[in-house]
Amino acid sequence: MPAAAIDTQFTADPGALDGTVVAVIPAPRDAVFRCYAQPELLARWWSPPSLEVRIERFEAHTGGSWRMLNIDGDGNEFAFRGVFHEVAAPERIVQTFEYEGAPGSVCLQTATFREVDGGTEVTEHAVFTSVADRDGMADQGWRDFAPVGMAQLAEVARGL
Amino acid sequence: MPAAAIDTQFTADPGALDGTVVAVIPAPRDAVFRCYAQPELLARWWSPPSLEVRIERFEAHTGGSWRMLNIDGDGNEFAFRGVFHEVAAPERIVQTFEYEGAPGSVCLQTATFREVDGGTEVTEHAVFTSVADRDGMADQGWRDFAPVGMAQLAEVARGL
Repeated sequence: MPAAAIDTQFTADPGALDGTVVAVIPAPRDAVFRCYAQPELLARWWSPPSLEVRIERFEAHTGGSWRMLNIDGDGNEFAFRGVFHEVAAPERIVQTFEYEGAPGSVCLQTATFREVDGGTEVTEHAVFTSVADRDGMADQGWRDFAPVGMAQLAEVARGL
Repeated sequence: MPAAAIDTQFTADPGALDGTVVAVIPAPRDAVFRCYAQPELLARWWSPPSLEVRIERFEAHTGGSWRMLNIDGDGNEFAFRGVFHEVAAPERIVQTFEYEGAPGSVCLQTATFREVDGGTEVTEHAVFTSVADRDGMADQGWRDFAPVGMAQLAEVARGL
């Protein structure tokens, strides 16, 4: 059964270097934060259902680093990696992100968690080093996956 | 004696999230790269001459982190910190940067080193999470310090 829909706003103004995803997750902030900071929880919502997730390294603390893989049904691996600039529970995570298949295309991601009526407002902001990189990320999955990911996140967070 | 001038271009388009410094340093690329990657060399050019530099941590490798302090004549300390997303000698360093006095204002910096006639072209690109942060950094020292820093860098690199 697919996860219940979560209203998700994706914004990427033409010509800008950044993009933003905002959604309200009907779960307590601590639970939502844990879904970002605990690898076994992250693995349950971070990817499209068709892809397996393998977490190779996930040092969710300021100064730590991470590497995760998506694996498709044919066994093809897609690796992503980055470093944690700041992990400030339960409010904020600032990290870098790079798809190893497009080396040099790095972005800085800030996830912010705010208590609101109805649960926790999640804001994911990402800023890129070029508009082309930003557009590429938006068009190759980010925009389409955002509502799917937020629905999956809600499902995992509500179960905690 | 102040360092000899180095032609330095600083670009920060109005309303954009990023800024760029470009200069040609009359020294071999390996030497210029070392001035960014070796803390004892970095400390010699990274700051205005009026400030002392103290390097508390400088793990110049992919996944490492760093923390440096500027200390003025009255003993006031100004701390900066970040993580290294990538250190790829002698071509590129990608890292985060935050002034601890303005917590939450983080930028992603990419320094690129290219062999050109006359030496090494250095491009420092920084992208911020808001235009206000970018403008603040540009106005509070970045724009003014860029040519000073590049001249000091040239002085150190030429001496290697």
